[in-house]
Amino acid sequence: MSGEPELFTIPARKGRAVRLGAGEAIQIVNTHGAQVVDTWAFSAEDPTEFLSNEHMRATLGKMWPGQGDPLVTNRRRPIMIMEKDTSPGWHDTLIAACDDYRYGLLGCEDYHDNCTDNLFAAMRRIGIEIFECPSPLNLWMNIPVAEDGTTSWGEPLSRPGDYVTLRARMDCVVAMSACPQDILPINGAACQPTEAHYRILPREG
Amino acid sequence: MSGEPELFTIPARKGRAVRLGAGEAIQIVNTHGAQVVDTWAFSAEDPTEFLSNEHMRATLGKMWPGQGDPLVTNRRRPIMIMEKDTSPGWHDTLIAACDDYRYGLLGCEDYHDNCTDNLFAAMRRIGIEIFECPSPLNLWMNIPVAEDGTTSWGEPLSRPGDYVTLRARMDCVVAMSACPQDILPINGAACQPTEAHYRILPREG
Repeated sequence: MSGEPELFTIPARKGRAVRLGAGEAIQIVNTHGAQVVDTWAFSAEDPTEFLSNEHMRATLGKMWPGQGDPLVTNRRRPIMIMEKDTSPGWHDTLIAACDDYRYGLLGCEDYHDNCTDNLFAAMRRIGIEIFECPSPLNLWMNIPVAEDGTTSWGEPLSRPGDYVTLRARMDCVVAMSACPQDILPINGAACQPTEAHYRILPREG
Repeated sequence: MSGEPELFTIPARKGRAVRLGAGEAIQIVNTHGAQVVDTWAFSAEDPTEFLSNEHMRATLGKMWPGQGDPLVTNRRRPIMIMEKDTSPGWHDTLIAACDDYRYGLLGCEDYHDNCTDNLFAAMRRIGIEIFECPSPLNLWMNIPVAEDGTTSWGEPLSRPGDYVTLRARMDCVVAMSACPQDILPINGAACQPTEAHYRILPREG
């Protein structure tokens, strides 16, 4: 195979899921620079094993992974490695995927696109039924934490074209949602969700 | 009914689960002062609705609940209210319940009591089968977070007899585990897990 691997789109406000073999990698691109991408990883063999923020934090001794860190499952195994991060490296593991309940509480009277439904739809689209929405790794989401434990809704620190490369340590499924949040400024001050992109990178060597 | 409600024991290293009607409360007592109690709450009607740290943090705008705050479910509803907290009010929502995998990684070669198995056993003991261990509200667990996002394993700031009162906003099941962690100092510098206690308080008024 020659040339750059194909670039796939995660449409604004929507989700996608892809299967990765052990050793393959996914490059997730913040095309326009201020888009949060909620990201999940499930074992291909048994989707009840998945990337789990609360288990990962205990293993890493920090709030979110950086370059070189493993993404850890609820069985405390590395499912992927964060091989590369060209962004300032500020991500979030504290905040649940948005859902229709959330937008209701924010004042929406009609259905609002949301990352939880995007996850279920993206998985279903590739033939996998799951029964819960794990706490996502929110790439580029900026949730400052004050010394007293209060949190706030920051804007991403990333720039157009920044990317994260996640390399699979086991056969897995990666799901992503270009977060449709347009009420709080987590996708930038303009509150304008945009598309993002991804590439699949082959095994190395 | 007259007098103080009966005091029940959560044996050191073990778990208990109790049913609460809406309006009743549970008082969880840190009898010896330095014991972390992993705590969960499930809807009695449908245990797939439960206290969810990642949804609660988004609602509260802080890392853990304090006196007067609602404990929020994965459907973004208050399941309980933290009505009273006599301790310095430092709790944890970042760290997963310990499990046998965890103790394996900490060097244990034999089975080690753990909060995850304690949850499943305590729920089964009152006839409820659950299929996952949600991220617990770790009462009195002290996980300092530095400005750069690194976390550390602190000792509880609580004192003997400190208690937290949680009042049910819906019919629910509360599960608790007196955390058997004896390798890291989260149950005090002596690494000596102890018993804790609880009382059921009637509806008010």
